[in-house]
Amino acid sequence: MEEQVEMVGRAFVEHYYHLFDTDRSSLASLYHQSSMLTFEGQKLQGVDICAKINQLPFDKCHHFISTIDTQPSSFAGGITVFVSGSLRLMCEEHPLRFSQMFHLIPTPQGSFYVQNDIFRLNYG
Amino acid sequence: MEEQVEMVGRAFVEHYYHLFDTDRSSLASLYHQSSMLTFEGQKLQGVDICAKINQLPFDKCHHFISTIDTQPSSFAGGITVFVSGSLRLMCEEHPLRFSQMFHLIPTPQGSFYVQNDIFRLNYG
Repeated sequence: MEEQVEMVGRAFVEHYYHLFDTDRSSLASLYHQSSMLTFEGQKLQGVDICAKINQLPFDKCHHFISTIDTQPSSFAGGITVFVSGSLRLMCEEHPLRFSQMFHLIPTPQGSFYVQNDIFRLNYG
Repeated sequence: MEEQVEMVGRAFVEHYYHLFDTDRSSLASLYHQSSMLTFEGQKLQGVDICAKINQLPFDKCHHFISTIDTQPSSFAGGITVFVSGSLRLMCEEHPLRFSQMFHLIPTPQGSFYVQNDIFRLNYG
């Protein structure tokens, strides 16, 4: 069980940032109508999440993952994923450090969607 | 509803780090038998959480909070809290940046306990 949670979490993280870096618009498939994103303090829900992600003011980027922590959440079958890493924008010399958490909920089809997503750049 | 979630999240954060900095052993009351902590990658559950917190290799410390983000979780009445800030140890000149997330679950008594807790120092 513990191992499965970790495996799903890691596979999700790999999939998520690969899509983000190569085909950002397809991230829409990972969010539902009820999904919530808090991006640098800005709260978004449902379709607004994908609009926000697609309108971020940079074109090409690359995420480097430093740590992935996973825990089963109390919600039946849910998984909490906590990521730290850095984000390299093509127009910027220095990568930006970030932390992000996801709460993944299983779908009846046997996959997962993102119910909660909180993203913060780490300054300082 | 949204405002209440934010209020509870902020009050929890204030309470949690105040206890951590002034009376660390009393944090035990915020965790249950089922609670999970991942501390810098180390996984702990139930009573082991408090043992870990009490045995951290520094005596006095002070947490400075930079950001608090809250979202209702899909679990009925649950709240996801995401914190970034810095940790000043009395023996260290430079504060350490950290990120931490909590998943709070309501108790029948009308308060909340920590079901999920993930802590990471932010290097770099």
